[in-house]
Amino acid sequence: MSLEIRKSTRDDVGTILGLIYKLAEYEELTDMVTATEEQLQETMFCEQPYAHCQLAFWNGEPVAYALYFFNYSTFLAQPGLYLEDLFVVPENRGNGIGKEMLLSLAREAKERNCGRMEWMALDWNTRAHDFYLNLGAKMLEEWKLFRATGESLDKLASL
Amino acid sequence: MSLEIRKSTRDDVGTILGLIYKLAEYEELTDMVTATEEQLQETMFCEQPYAHCQLAFWNGEPVAYALYFFNYSTFLAQPGLYLEDLFVVPENRGNGIGKEMLLSLAREAKERNCGRMEWMALDWNTRAHDFYLNLGAKMLEEWKLFRATGESLDKLASL
Repeated sequence: MSLEIRKSTRDDVGTILGLIYKLAEYEELTDMVTATEEQLQETMFCEQPYAHCQLAFWNGEPVAYALYFFNYSTFLAQPGLYLEDLFVVPENRGNGIGKEMLLSLAREAKERNCGRMEWMALDWNTRAHDFYLNLGAKMLEEWKLFRATGESLDKLASL
Repeated sequence: MSLEIRKSTRDDVGTILGLIYKLAEYEELTDMVTATEEQLQETMFCEQPYAHCQLAFWNGEPVAYALYFFNYSTFLAQPGLYLEDLFVVPENRGNGIGKEMLLSLAREAKERNCGRMEWMALDWNTRAHDFYLNLGAKMLEEWKLFRATGESLDKLASL
């Protein structure tokens, strides 16, 4: 049995989209997905990519993806690596693939001179919290996320 | 009395750094700031900027900054605008400058074809929460932020 983790290339957009749909299925949110291969090409494999991806293959089959982008610390004037999605297909869990991907991303963060790596987890997912805390990460409990989207963003932009 | 809001240029790094220090003073965190003008140049005014800034001037004096970058929605394959810092110097509060900057950022988000705009607030800052909710934003209470930084990031990268 062999695990390979590597950065994605523009030839992988079909694989990435397939895994995005598997995540959406798992979360029962497939009707929220509007992403297409063309949009992934345009936003991730362009001159100024908005996001990046690492893929994991188990015996040659794609089994996980980690999608990330660079955020920024003002006090450090330095980028950070923000992990937007880390998804391992259910049938390949328990093999340490998620942990290997997190470590691979930490190495990527160091290579890119990032001062930190951040991600979010749902508050009920205490199993994930324990996993992250055991790896040395901290939970920043004092922050609340706000979002303006769709109509509320349109309204703000037109005020 | 006149308010001007505009995008920053590389000539503004001194102004931006001055405002970052004013934020740090306000938060009593000046010893956390290691940013220099050179680092701001290298990370924000380069070929692939990690972050962007809008500045507000009141009667020609810089009184506020909004520092943002682009995050990413996997399901939409579309960037979002993430507001990292929005700071108005204490002596110029109550003039609606913060609100004008938020609206300016919402317009920037639409111009850049962003599907959403996001930011965080400290959980005790209920005055800010009410302000954001009144503008139509939603609070996403179910998410917890995790961070690996310094030694814990080094450790992850070396495992």
